[in-house]
Amino acid sequence: MREVFQQEMSEVQDRLVGIAELVKSSITDAVESFNKSDVTLAESVIARDSKIDDAVNELDEHAIAILARQSPVARDLRMVVSALRISASLERMGDMAEHIAQLARYRFPDKVVPKAIRPTFKEMGALDVAVATMLVDLLKTQDVKIAEKIRDEDDKVDALHLSVFETVLSESWSQGTETTVDATLASRYLERFADHAVSIAKKMMYLSTGEWNPSSN
Amino acid sequence: MREVFQQEMSEVQDRLVGIAELVKSSITDAVESFNKSDVTLAESVIARDSKIDDAVNELDEHAIAILARQSPVARDLRMVVSALRISASLERMGDMAEHIAQLARYRFPDKVVPKAIRPTFKEMGALDVAVATMLVDLLKTQDVKIAEKIRDEDDKVDALHLSVFETVLSESWSQGTETTVDATLASRYLERFADHAVSIAKKMMYLSTGEWNPSSN
Repeated sequence: MREVFQQEMSEVQDRLVGIAELVKSSITDAVESFNKSDVTLAESVIARDSKIDDAVNELDEHAIAILARQSPVARDLRMVVSALRISASLERMGDMAEHIAQLARYRFPDKVVPKAIRPTFKEMGALDVAVATMLVDLLKTQDVKIAEKIRDEDDKVDALHLSVFETVLSESWSQGTETTVDATLASRYLERFADHAVSIAKKMMYLSTGEWNPSSN
Repeated sequence: MREVFQQEMSEVQDRLVGIAELVKSSITDAVESFNKSDVTLAESVIARDSKIDDAVNELDEHAIAILARQSPVARDLRMVVSALRISASLERMGDMAEHIAQLARYRFPDKVVPKAIRPTFKEMGALDVAVATMLVDLLKTQDVKIAEKIRDEDDKVDALHLSVFETVLSESWSQGTETTVDATLASRYLERFADHAVSIAKKMMYLSTGEWNPSSN
C-alpha cells in the first residue's frame, strides 16, 4: 500500500512539474510577445492555456483518485491536498500569462507600453520567467532554499509594480488613457503571476516544515 | 461512520456559510465605502479580512481532518475536496472586497471615480452584493437554480466592466491618470469578485450533476 502510494505521488509530482513547465513556456513566450509585439507568439500562448487547464483537471482527478483508493493520513494526506492547491495556483499563473499575451495581440502592431517604461516591464517579465524556472526546479527537487529565492524575486517584482504606478502618476507621463489602462493591467498581471509562485513556494515549505498559513500572502 | 461523516460535513457547510456571510458583509461595506468615500467603513473591511482568512484556514484544517478520520470516497470525497476549493475562492473574494476598500481609503476624502462614471460602479457594486447574497443562499440550500442566477449576474458585471473601459477610452474622458488607474483597478476587482462566485457556483453544480470543469471559466 505504502509503495503504491509513493508511486502514485511520484506521478502527481511529475504531473505538477509538467504543468509548471507549460506555465514556464507560456510566461516566457508571453513576455517576449509583449516586449517584441510578436502576435504569432501571443497566439501560441493563448492556445496553450487550454492545454494547461486540461493538464490541471487531469492532475486533480488523479489526486482525488489517490485520496479515494489510498485514504492517506498525516503527511501523505497533506501532500495530496497540497498538490490540489498547487495545481490551482499553476492554473492561475497560466491565466496571467494568457492575459499578458492578449494585451500584446490586442495592441499589435503597436507595442503595449511606451518606450520610457519598457525597461521596467522587461525587468518584471524577466523576473517572472526566472520565478517560473525556479518553480519547475522547486517542484522537481523540493528544495526549500528555492522557495526562499522565489520570495526574494517576488519582492523585486512588487517593487517594480509600485514603480510602474509611480511612473504613470508622475508629471512626466504624457501618455493617453489607453496606454495608462494597459500599463496598469499588464503590471498587475505580472505581479499576480509572481504572487501565485510565492503561494506555491509556501505550500512546499509547509510540506517540509509543517507550518501552514496559506492566506498570509 | 456514515452518520459521523454527515454530521462533520454539515459543520463544514455551516462554516462555508459563515465565511460567505463575512464575505457578503465585506463586499457590502466595501462598495458603500467606495461609493460614499466612507473611510471608517473601509477600515472595517480591511480589518475583517484577517478574520476571513482565519476562518478559511480553520475550515481547511477541519476538512483535512475529515479526510484523515473518515477516508471518504466517491461523492463524499468530492464534497470535501469541493469545500476546500470553495473556501479558497471565498478567501479571494474577501481579498477583492479589501482591495476595493483600500482604494476608498487611499483616495479619501475624494471619491475614487468621477461623477460621470459613478452610476456604472454603483451598479457593478450592487451586482456584487447581490451575487454575495445569492452565494450565501446557494451554500445554505444547495439549490442549483441559484447557481444559474449567479452566472446571469456575472454576465451583467462583465458587460459593465467592458463599459468602464469604453468610457475611459472615449473622447469625452478628460480625467487624469490617477483616476484612470483607479477606475481600471476598481473595475477589475469588482469583476473578479463575481468571477469567483461563478467558480463556486460551478463547484456546487458539479456536486449535484457530477460534471466538473473548473477551469473553463
